[in-house]
Amino acid sequence: MTHDHALQDHYPADFAHCYGCGRLNEHGHHIRTFEDGDSAVATYTPRPFHMALPGFVYGGLIASLIDCHSIGTAAIAAMRAAGQEVGVDPSPRFVTAALRVDYLKPTPLGVELEVRARVKEGGGRKYVVEATVSAGGTVTAQGEVVAVAMPETMAAAGK
Amino acid sequence: MTHDHALQDHYPADFAHCYGCGRLNEHGHHIRTFEDGDSAVATYTPRPFHMALPGFVYGGLIASLIDCHSIGTAAIAAMRAAGQEVGVDPSPRFVTAALRVDYLKPTPLGVELEVRARVKEGGGRKYVVEATVSAGGTVTAQGEVVAVAMPETMAAAGK
Repeated sequence: MTHDHALQDHYPADFAHCYGCGRLNEHGHHIRTFEDGDSAVATYTPRPFHMALPGFVYGGLIASLIDCHSIGTAAIAAMRAAGQEVGVDPSPRFVTAALRVDYLKPTPLGVELEVRARVKEGGGRKYVVEATVSAGGTVTAQGEVVAVAMPETMAAAGK
Repeated sequence: MTHDHALQDHYPADFAHCYGCGRLNEHGHHIRTFEDGDSAVATYTPRPFHMALPGFVYGGLIASLIDCHSIGTAAIAAMRAAGQEVGVDPSPRFVTAALRVDYLKPTPLGVELEVRARVKEGGGRKYVVEATVSAGGTVTAQGEVVAVAMPETMAAAGK
């Protein structure tokens, strides 16, 4: 069972500084992606100041949750396709080529949000991942991310 | 001339707590939107920890810049349509119904970014705004935001 391991806990150190999900970014959100059947799940409780207006979560944070968690979901899919295991094998590195978020209804502040994502299509160096954000069981936002394998130029610069 | 006034400096106080652009959110980004001819411009220098990986800006921050600045651009358009002036008349309140970002190339960290937006279509209670993010004169991301007048339910909850 690999469900106890968040993908991001095992990113290579030079890929672990992301403001959204890097375990080594002390100012960041530390979004963590867990395998869950044929999808992947992350939970996150926004801080009080992550507001759009009093009582509601800031849309840019919701976009960030969908972004990082979908990238993690693509990486997990790539590992599964290669017969690899989260927590055992090194994670491949994906980056975001495109992000879309539909804000279906206001997302309440003060509760834990669940972000759930699954691969819609793709393989190899490109995955399309669809995601939802739920508050108290109600889906408040849905999104789609095009995840691509990190270009060599970015990888080299990050070393 | 109204170009010296950032739209967000004149949001009503109960609409000025946004993590992206609220002047009253002490933890936020304080994105500020200025009229500039038939478009609107905002500049922002990401902080060192706003990284995707070392040397490059976090995509969720880029999404946030496009989001808040496009919402501000829609509000300015609505004010122009009503013959109102930024810095003089109260701003209308728009929220994000949908957000799309295409990450064209990695955005370098450590330089000031320019976000430029213009209304693509719409009027009244709904505008579609297109935006670009540039670093050193090179467009690194482009996006589109569907901005809608804030629902009464959100307005009531925020009071």
